[in-house]
Amino acid sequence: MKTQSVYLKNQPLEDARKTWQKALEKIHFLNARKSEIITVDQSRDRITAQPVVAAHSSPTYNAAAMDGIAIRFFDLNSASEANPVVLEKQDFLRVNTGNNIPEPYNAVVMIEDVHFLDDGRVELIAPATPWQHIRTIGEDIVATEMILPEAHTIRPIDQGAMLAAGITEVEVIIAPKITVIPTGSELIEPGHPVEPGQIIEFNSRILAGYLNQWGGNASAHAPVKDDPELLAAAIQEAVKAADFVVTNAGASAGTKDFSASILATLGTVVVHGVAIKPGKPVILAIIDNTPVIGLPGYPVSALLTLQLFGKELIHHFLGTTPPAAPATTAYMSRPMHSPMGVEQFIRVTLGQVGDKLIATPSGKGAGAVMSMVRADGLLTIPARSEGIGAGEPVRVELLRKRTEVDTTLVSIGSHDNILDLLANQLYKGKPSIRLSSAHVGSLGGIMAIRRGEAHIAGCHLLDEKSGEYNISFIKRFLPELELELINLCYREQGFIVKKSNPLAIFRFEDICTHNRTFINRQKGAGTRLLTDKLIRDSHLSPDAIKGYDHEEYTHMNVAAAVAGGRADCGLGIRAAAEALDLDFVPITEERYDLVIPRTCRNDQRIVSLLEIIRKKSQFHDKIKKLGGYDLRDCGSVIYSQ
Amino acid sequence: MKTQSVYLKNQPLEDARKTWQKALEKIHFLNARKSEIITVDQSRDRITAQPVVAAHSSPTYNAAAMDGIAIRFFDLNSASEANPVVLEKQDFLRVNTGNNIPEPYNAVVMIEDVHFLDDGRVELIAPATPWQHIRTIGEDIVATEMILPEAHTIRPIDQGAMLAAGITEVEVIIAPKITVIPTGSELIEPGHPVEPGQIIEFNSRILAGYLNQWGGNASAHAPVKDDPELLAAAIQEAVKAADFVVTNAGASAGTKDFSASILATLGTVVVHGVAIKPGKPVILAIIDNTPVIGLPGYPVSALLTLQLFGKELIHHFLGTTPPAAPATTAYMSRPMHSPMGVEQFIRVTLGQVGDKLIATPSGKGAGAVMSMVRADGLLTIPARSEGIGAGEPVRVELLRKRTEVDTTLVSIGSHDNILDLLANQLYKGKPSIRLSSAHVGSLGGIMAIRRGEAHIAGCHLLDEKSGEYNISFIKRFLPELELELINLCYREQGFIVKKSNPLAIFRFEDICTHNRTFINRQKGAGTRLLTDKLIRDSHLSPDAIKGYDHEEYTHMNVAAAVAGGRADCGLGIRAAAEALDLDFVPITEERYDLVIPRTCRNDQRIVSLLEIIRKKSQFHDKIKKLGGYDLRDCGSVIYSQ
Repeated sequence: MKTQSVYLKNQPLEDARKTWQKALEKIHFLNARKSEIITVDQSRDRITAQPVVAAHSSPTYNAAAMDGIAIRFFDLNSASEANPVVLEKQDFLRVNTGNNIPEPYNAVVMIEDVHFLDDGRVELIAPATPWQHIRTIGEDIVATEMILPEAHTIRPIDQGAMLAAGITEVEVIIAPKITVIPTGSELIEPGHPVEPGQIIEFNSRILAGYLNQWGGNASAHAPVKDDPELLAAAIQEAVKAADFVVTNAGASAGTKDFSASILATLGTVVVHGVAIKPGKPVILAIIDNTPVIGLPGYPVSALLTLQLFGKELIHHFLGTTPPAAPATTAYMSRPMHSPMGVEQFIRVTLGQVGDKLIATPSGKGAGAVMSMVRADGLLTIPARSEGIGAGEPVRVELLRKRTEVDTTLVSIGSHDNILDLLANQLYKGKPSIRLSSAHVGSLGGIMAIRRGEAHIAGCHLLDEKSGEYNISFIKRFLPELELELINLCYREQGFIVKKSNPLAIFRFEDICTHNRTFINRQKGAGTRLLTDKLIRDSHLSPDAIKGYDHEEYTHMNVAAAVAGGRADCGLGIRAAAEALDLDFVPITEERYDLVIPRTCRNDQRIVSLLEIIRKKSQFHDKIKKLGGYDLRDCGSVIYSQ
Repeated sequence: MKTQSVYLKNQPLEDARKTWQKALEKIHFLNARKSEIITVDQSRDRITAQPVVAAHSSPTYNAAAMDGIAIRFFDLNSASEANPVVLEKQDFLRVNTGNNIPEPYNAVVMIEDVHFLDDGRVELIAPATPWQHIRTIGEDIVATEMILPEAHTIRPIDQGAMLAAGITEVEVIIAPKITVIPTGSELIEPGHPVEPGQIIEFNSRILAGYLNQWGGNASAHAPVKDDPELLAAAIQEAVKAADFVVTNAGASAGTKDFSASILATLGTVVVHGVAIKPGKPVILAIIDNTPVIGLPGYPVSALLTLQLFGKELIHHFLGTTPPAAPATTAYMSRPMHSPMGVEQFIRVTLGQVGDKLIATPSGKGAGAVMSMVRADGLLTIPARSEGIGAGEPVRVELLRKRTEVDTTLVSIGSHDNILDLLANQLYKGKPSIRLSSAHVGSLGGIMAIRRGEAHIAGCHLLDEKSGEYNISFIKRFLPELELELINLCYREQGFIVKKSNPLAIFRFEDICTHNRTFINRQKGAGTRLLTDKLIRDSHLSPDAIKGYDHEEYTHMNVAAAVAGGRADCGLGIRAAAEALDLDFVPITEERYDLVIPRTCRNDQRIVSLLEIIRKKSQFHDKIKKLGGYDLRDCGSVIYSQ
């Protein structure tokens, strides 16, 4: 297949939007919109295609608004306590709320104000006003009145109002049909064993899920292999049946990135390349009067560009206004650089610490799905800015309810597998608390506490001189801060090695002698301090350890490096080795404590956390199952200042 | 059936909540919770019953993060521009993004940095770092890592993360089954002709709709007649099958209000009567360990009490946190009184006028469904307060997106049927604008403009002396304000009478002579001024007009009063008569103008409105179809100051 060659531009976002908008107008995109008539009972969350007007009034008759008696108001004109009026049986009617008030009655007296006489007559001691305690015809809705405008999203109360006004069917817009086409020869459907070089196709599920959430009717096409003919055929078929089409991957300019050239051959590429990060290679095209959005392949880039262009397209089609994402002001916990001229989107986690809402990037890499799962917010660094300094206020769009953000306990520091268990336990507790953990090592945690950016910091810093943990570091780095050091656990540290330890690694000497590859932890991690101490104790030089310069940030990532063959061994905790079915060579037991500033001690989130760790319950059993933990001091105050 | 008698109390809301909470704990309500295993593809918006942990890592292999070549990093250690390294064909591998990096390769060089030689070898001029441009195993997700905690609502991104981690099925909580039982012999199903005394059963649809929106699995029972035996049987059957039950109506203490006594006979009434308005008679009961909420009958009371107790019950069951309703500060446009000791809920419409968000009650009466349809917000007057003064700031819970509130054009003043058409036209325009109309009469509109609470005011105030409309009133009441008076229409005013005018009403004299019943408009309405002028011109006394004291607020309500038999005639516009298929006796033509303060003239909302009314399009045709309008000056500036 001969395809056009296309060049990736770098258009400012606003320009791209305008160009795209004009292209959509030119093809009369909205003419594709169709409507259908459905029952009111089925109409929740659908969008009106026409204004809805009342078929009849409500109430449809003059109805008693109280239990009592219906009377003619002028019969009571002279009634008073001194001069009661007595009505004969035929001159009043006993009514309950909702009953019809037939002629000639024109007022209701509440039951409490009626004196029933034994002979069936009634005595009344106050006059009445015309139509008192009567819901008159049309009081709520008058026939022909407009109940709902068009392009209105129907709520349950609207369904009630329509039914009350005698309407049982309503004309609604048919959601735009959207086909999502994932491309890539490496893609396999979920549920199959994954070989190296294969990727589970999950992007189309994320994309179709959000498109449906935004009001579309999206479905995912089977993955299309990296073959221009096949991809062109799939797109041509899709544009015939769908109101718009989304392709995923191949948007860039690599050897297998055909999307742009195929779209240019089949139709018109309106935009290719926008000055945003991530998401730069996004393509906006028109084929046979049908819009096609070509998304980049990585999940984060794909989702962000879909939010920028796909969400808007659905709202445009439906005639609805996209809800403004709730936003708030937060303070950056660390500086973020951003290239001039590029609008950069950064996923952050948020946590209220003291009087400040702290934003911390939740992970980088366009492939990091978990960075989106964990993110509480999204911040935009505008094209005209070179970045944000630490402690600077930023406007963050919330991806999570503000209440959830407010219940987030911010833990920054050393990583331990217990934190996952604790996160779950806190989340399902009453009140529900979210634990947001940033793994930056023990010293990083202490620094975060110093800057007032964390509620707790997990640490296990060995003082080589005293052999004690943590306290000397606290005295040095947090001398002024009132705090408590509370033990979480003792845990075994040792070599994480391949199953059955085939290379027989027991000491650092073994690594040097046989030139094995080590995987290190980052500077400032407690495990790094331990590593350096052990190397020194062995009278070795770090230069003699292959892989010493390659750092990972968590025990689990060290274990993953060993499991994946990138390293022969690394230093870490037993729980990480056991989780990935690796072997473990114990070296030492260390103490892992939580630093908690005194100002946080009465915080409900901290109180709940301490309750959980201090209760010798199922939770302790679960920790023990992880392997390598001793909880003899769990929850005890080790030190306070 | 013998039932217990029960007394309606008036418990403070917080006490009621606590008592209810304790009762739920006692029956171990949460034990009713069940879970099921479903595919990840079907799991959007479902709630996890267990924490979800990764089945395998992602990536599952070391994957190229760039298009380029895979190499061994140490082969390039000496590479520099002056001293390039040339690699033989067997020493590198051409890779695209996502490709597997097999052993022994451990770094990727980007395609842009590779110089391909003609003989198939490559030349490289810079060293590489280990694992550069490689997404290593577990970089995103490490096997056994917790991806989602339990009690988490699954989003599309979470579905993606689960699939990426090799999970295809997930255990989720089964939504609580809820049965809504509407009661009342007067209820008929929608779609049937309504006789006097019958009410269309729409409440259960509203209630089930919201229960489902909040995460429940609610269905409506057929309406149960006012018969204690039948109601008891329905409740007994429902509590067997459902996780909780909602009854609607009969909660109070009237002769047909059996709910409380039946619930007390079948089980335990925990709460009956809460100090809230509306919604006081709500019942909270337990039958066979199943919670039953007995809601009052009126739709507004029912929905508000359901929000207070039903929503919480669902979230409690699911283990989720109810989202905090977004709230904002607004300023009351008129004083609201509230009894001490009662927590009062008031539906309001909101509009940004100048720098203030103005809140105006959207209607009263517990039966007013449209007051809920129109409401933008809900404000709570606490039990300890006696009310709110005009202009006082209040905290309003938003029932509509803030963006929608911001696009609301506030019209306060005289009612005209064109406003409905205009509302629809503005709403479907681009940008979408909501027209919120409060019908308080012409003079009320001018006063709202004076207080800065409205963007526009529709008025048709006849100056008896000059015969001119509106201008003299503006000079008198708005002497300082820069404004424009823009014509909307001329319209016919006259008597709205029954079809074919059987009582032959042509003049006010006809009303007096034959003692016909008139329906009046409220003081301050332009039509009221016209009425009074006509009566004076006829040398009649208002006392001689039967019904002169009975006031309605809109033309449509006057027409509805005539259609419903409450009055023989009223003064109003032709469009109102024609809408309800009544007859019309023209008396005069009047001018209906819009007062627009100069400060609003550049407001996008006003600009759009003027564009619509000035365009002689379909919109003008639609107005003419209403009957009785002349648009010869529509959009013209009549006067400015």
